[in-house]
Parts: sequence; C-alpha cells; structure tokens
Amino acid sequence: MSEKLYTVVEGGSITTPRGFTSGGLHCGLKKTDRNDLAAILCEVPATAAAVYTTNLFQAAPLKVSRESLGSGVLRAVVVNSGNANACTGEQGEADAYEMRAAAARHLGVSEDEVAVASTGVIGELLKMDRVRDGLAALPAKLSGDADGAEEFCQAILTTDLVKKECCVKVRIGDTEVLIAGAAKGSGMIHPNMATMLGFMTTDAVIGQEALQTLLRKATDTTFNMITVDGDTSTNDMLVSMASGLAGNEELDRRHADWEAFEAAFTHVCRHLAMAIARDGEGATHLIEVRVSGATDEAAARAIAKTIVGSSLVKSAIFGADANWGRIIAAVGRAGVPVTVDKVDISLGNIEVLRQSKPVVFDEAEALAYLQGDTTLITVNLADGEGSAIAWGCDLTYDYVRINAAYRT
Amino acid sequence: MSEKLYTVVEGGSITTPRGFTSGGLHCGLKKTDRNDLAAILCEVPATAAAVYTTNLFQAAPLKVSRESLGSGVLRAVVVNSGNANACTGEQGEADAYEMRAAAARHLGVSEDEVAVASTGVIGELLKMDRVRDGLAALPAKLSGDADGAEEFCQAILTTDLVKKECCVKVRIGDTEVLIAGAAKGSGMIHPNMATMLGFMTTDAVIGQEALQTLLRKATDTTFNMITVDGDTSTNDMLVSMASGLAGNEELDRRHADWEAFEAAFTHVCRHLAMAIARDGEGATHLIEVRVSGATDEAAARAIAKTIVGSSLVKSAIFGADANWGRIIAAVGRAGVPVTVDKVDISLGNIEVLRQSKPVVFDEAEALAYLQGDTTLITVNLADGEGSAIAWGCDLTYDYVRINAAYRT
Repeated sequence: MSEKLYTVVEGGSITTPRGFTSGGLHCGLKKTDRNDLAAILCEVPATAAAVYTTNLFQAAPLKVSRESLGSGVLRAVVVNSGNANACTGEQGEADAYEMRAAAARHLGVSEDEVAVASTGVIGELLKMDRVRDGLAALPAKLSGDADGAEEFCQAILTTDLVKKECCVKVRIGDTEVLIAGAAKGSGMIHPNMATMLGFMTTDAVIGQEALQTLLRKATDTTFNMITVDGDTSTNDMLVSMASGLAGNEELDRRHADWEAFEAAFTHVCRHLAMAIARDGEGATHLIEVRVSGATDEAAARAIAKTIVGSSLVKSAIFGADANWGRIIAAVGRAGVPVTVDKVDISLGNIEVLRQSKPVVFDEAEALAYLQGDTTLITVNLADGEGSAIAWGCDLTYDYVRINAAYRT
Repeated sequence: MSEKLYTVVEGGSITTPRGFTSGGLHCGLKKTDRNDLAAILCEVPATAAAVYTTNLFQAAPLKVSRESLGSGVLRAVVVNSGNANACTGEQGEADAYEMRAAAARHLGVSEDEVAVASTGVIGELLKMDRVRDGLAALPAKLSGDADGAEEFCQAILTTDLVKKECCVKVRIGDTEVLIAGAAKGSGMIHPNMATMLGFMTTDAVIGQEALQTLLRKATDTTFNMITVDGDTSTNDMLVSMASGLAGNEELDRRHADWEAFEAAFTHVCRHLAMAIARDGEGATHLIEVRVSGATDEAAARAIAKTIVGSSLVKSAIFGADANWGRIIAAVGRAGVPVTVDKVDISLGNIEVLRQSKPVVFDEAEALAYLQGDTTLITVNLADGEGSAIAWGCDLTYDYVRINAAYRT
C-alpha cells in the first residue's frame, strides 16, 4: 500500500483515463432541478467487471446490468437518481430494459454493451416519459473534459452533500496508466460485496478475469468496510471499465507491475469508500476504526465493522464523549473470539484502555481530539495477526431528520 | 398463548408472589437523588434460574452471580444502577464480591445465596464507600407491600422514563400461583440470551431444571426479540426466583397445568420486554414486527429483528413515513432465504405490498395510522410455517441527544 507505487492526479476524474466521455442532465426524476440522469461512454469496447449487492431483493437495473456484463465488455453505463426502480415488479424490469435499449440507440452502441444503474426511492415506477426525453438529450451532453465528469458526478447524488471522485496514475512498464472512479452514498450504506453506486474507469490494458478478481479483492477492503446505517441497499453496484487505450503490456497477476496497479486501483476504491463514509447522512465526523491483533483477518473485519456500526459509539462521537465502554461492548458482541483481558484501545493518540484496564486520561485533551472532524479508534487484541480498517460516521440529529421524511 | 390460561393481576408487583420483600434507596451512585441501590429478599431459599448476556466482556457482577446461581438456590438479589462495574478489572471483581458479602451480612443470609447485578456507565470503579453505607441501610427499607416494589423498580432505572413491572396469576391444580417481574432498559438493548436487567418472582413450587429451561425458552421469544439500538450490553442478566410458598404440586413439563404456567410466565416476560422496547431511549413509538410464512422459526426471528433494528425503518416511523421500501430492503439483508416475489407487507391494517408488488394505499390514512404510538408491521413470506414477533422503537432526535453525552 506504499504511496510511491502510484500518484494521485489532482483534479482528475472519470474522464481522465483515455477513451471515456461522460455527462449528465436533469430529466425530472428529482424534485429539485439537480441532475438525475447521466452516462459514461467508452469510445472503444471496454473490458468490464462489476460487483453487486447481496440483498436478496435486487433492483431491476441489476438484472439488466448482469446480462450486459455477461460478455465482459461494455461501451456505456447509464444511471438515474431519484428513483431506485427496486421492488417495481415486471413493469420495473421492462422499464430497465427500455432504459438500456434507448440509451444504446442514442449512444450508437449495442444493447448488450450498456449497463444500467438506479438510485433513490424504492417501490415507485420510473417516470419513463422523462427518462426517454432525457436519454435523447444525453449524448449531446457527453464530453471528455472536467465538465462532463462534474455533470455525471452531480447526477448520481441523492442525499449526498458532495461528489466523490478520485484519479490516480501508475507506471506499467514504460506506459503511464490512469485509473479513476466516481461514487455516491449516503444512506442505506452497509455494502456487502459492493457499494451503493460506484463507477471506475481506466485506460489500462487488462484481461476481464484479472479485472473482475481485482475489483472483488479491492472491494473487500474498501467499499465492504464502510457503514453509514447498517442497511444494505437493494441497488448496490460497482462497475469498472478498462478502455485499454494506454497501450500497456496486458496486465495480469504475473505482470511485474501488478502490485503497483493493484495498489493504485485499491487507492481509488478506498478514497471513494472513505468519501462515502465521511458524507454519510447527517455526518459531522468520519470515523476510522483500525483493528489489529485479531485471530484472523475475518475476525478483525467483523470487529471493526461492529464498532463503526454501533449506534452508541456513533452517538458518543457526535457528542465528543470518550465513552470507550461502548467500544469494548461492541468488540464483545462482534461474534468472533477475543481474549477478554488483553485489549488496548486508543482514541487518536490518547490511550484509554490497556490490557483491558482503564487508563486515566486527560478529559479536556480527549474532548479537543473528539471535536475534530475525523476520529481514529485503534483496537489491538494481541490475539494474532489479523487486521482490518473500517470507516463510518457519527449518528446525528440530522441523520434522523433526513430519514424521518425521506420519501414524502 | 391463550389469555384464558392465566389472569393479569392489576397493581401486582414483584412482592405480590408469597415470600418476597423488596426495597431501594439512593446511596449516591447516580448524580441525581433517584434510587440507585435495591434488593429483593425471599424469606425462604428460592429455586433460582438465570440467563446472562452473550457479550464476551461480561461485567464483574455476572461472574459473582454465576457462582451464586451454581447451587440453583437464592435468597436475595442486590442491584445498583449508575455504574455497570464492567471492564473494571480485578478491583471491579473484588468490589462485586464485597457487595455480595456485605448484602448477605446485612440481610442475614449466606453469600452464595445472593446474586449481584449492576447497570450504568462502563469502565468506572464503584464508589464502594457509598455502596457499603447503602447496603447497611437497605434491610430497613424492605417491605412486602407496593411501596417496597416501587422503590426497587425506581432503583434499577437508568435512562428509563418509566418503571417496568408485571404480575399474573395462574391456577395450578387447586392452587393459585403468582408470577411477577420487573425490568429496566433502555439503551444498549439488543439482548442475546438475556436482557439488560430483569427480575422475576413466583411463589410456585417448581424444580430448578424446569425453571431454568422455561426461563431460557421464554427469553428466546420475548427479551431476545427486542432491540433498541442493536448494541448487546455487557451486563444483561435475567434472574428468576421461586419461593415455593404457593404450595402447589411441583411443576414440571409433565404437570397437567404446565401449559398454563408456561403461558403465564411467558406473559410476564413479554410484558416486560415490550415495556423496555416502548421505553427505548428517545422512543416515541413502540414498533411490533410480525413475520409469518418464513422457512422456519429461526428465519422468522432473523427477519423480524433485522426489520425492527433497521435505523432507516426506525427513522421512517419516527417521521410517520410509510416507507415500506426500507422494510423489504431489511428482509432482503437478514441473511436467511426468502422467495423474493411472494412477500406481503402491511402497516397496521393498511396493505402496502402484495406478492412483492406495491399496493396503492391512502397516504392520509397511512399517516394517521403511523402517528399513533404503536406501529404494527406485518410481513408474510409464504415460504413456510416459521413465525416470530419482535419489538423495538423508533429512532429519534432524543436518542441522539441522550447518547451524545451519556457519560459526561
């Protein structure tokens, strides 16, 4: 995970990798005049990979996208916000297919090269007249410059306050390869095999199987390690497209620069995942939980996610209260083995528990630390080599306000 | 579960069953002048049973109580609030033992006949000088009348707004047997084998094994089916004492009136569990989730608890928003099999989903229903015979307020 293997491209976006254009517009699915329809188009057939929600009730667009992804090649992905097209029955499925067909026609590509994603309210039918008009107008909005990416990023947001994007470059042999991504949160976020909606572009030459394997592996330590509210969405999908226009020697696990590519690719995933956590509904703090010394990595992940998902821990951090008792209570209910008398806990650099015994700490110092916008909780279990990092956010009045009347 | 098998005793309490006295006082563990130390005493050795939290970090009093319960007989249980005596190391354990010894001495019973329970902040040492003085004064406060029970119930509360108690009578042969209980909530409530703190008294003659088995069984469908915040406490304990003073023919599973006794006993547990859910921190609604048609009972329980524990469902009910999409999303992430196209969902009597398809309903009617203080969510899966009921409460601004600064 050395930063030296790759470089962050400041101001880079999903259209920075060669071959991609994107754009968005307002077609009328959101009540405000914010963008609600968008697409990414690749000028050549892109090697494509995706991961999807594990929620049993999968939204209609996921079925359609799975079909398109079957070939491992995509030219475009089309997304709407304001309506999840989930639990909408046969009509919803027909609408998702029509959305794919219309997008393909207007973009001049074939249907099975188009993935579809939706996000918003569950259980309402899409206003297809608006979607149809929007799709007809969309091709003219696509561009390869920063504006095109900005319009796309704005169009995929729902309760998000800020757009989430990231771009890095990495040297593969003598070739510079670009990797970028955009994502949205910010409620019903407890991904399990994928996140709410994420889109990654790269100009790397990479085989489909290698891309799919990498996407799944990177997701496990990034998107799958965040939670906002413990609720796994019906619409989670992360799609990655590789245009191959960088012209590097084809990447796979045996390539000399695979490690660098994997680190760069994972950086983009982690950046987006952390941005979703920080922009969780109502959040005022990003919470990062680092667990080490667990019996294995699975145990470390379970403990880290239990802590970062605890309503009591989240409320305490909103209140800047160094209530470490809630942290250890969360460790103890995570469902994995822990030696109960060897736990160390720190908040930032402030040690609060050593070998499971309270450490006297300076309350004023703790308060000052917890009033910052990022809270680091470090837990060492001294039981083994397992470690993991999870991200989440605090539980605030605004979370309740936002979700008490989301639909109405 | 027919109500006719037993009768609720209006105004009954933990001292209504023959042989029990109780009382409480303020010794100085709570910052306010509310009671914080209490005991129940049985005039004869009582057959006793208990269930405890499954949290790995179990508070010191649980260790001490397990030892006392080893014999299956108790004379008394002593409780403090304001401090959980959890994660307090060797000193905490010594304090719990001292609390047991002092209580035994002042009550005139032997140490191994006394159970100890604590609730409150985790990780701080008990102020033992105050506990010692309080225990010395406690015997004079015990009484068998309603006042004694009232003082006990008040003493075990923390963030609870109201006391929780229940008493029923049931006919065993020619004998009337009384069963009563008291409990407290109202945060860190997601019991797993037990609840926060619960105390049951009965004057039935019943064997220890039968009582333990019944307590565990009743807990599974009552206390273990509630959640306030998904956090399982380090201090959960439910203790039941049977004085035997009713003089009935000894109860066990082969007794002709076992079914009635079980129904009556379970009624007390359910009443207390529902009272804890209704008085969950910050709650304005009791939520009851009834799941039927699941593949088996375990699946039904998992689904019911996932729905009632969903922050998004809880927030929507606070806002009286009929957002059933969040309910079905919770069904789909519960981790058990569900046929996705056969789900019916109702809010009260208002059908919102039939065979997984949205039903057009009257929003005004739904709003009026959801503004009531109890919300019933019914889910039928048509997959089998498994059913379960779970209880919880809504997620409100007050939950955040209470927990943002609990410790300080």
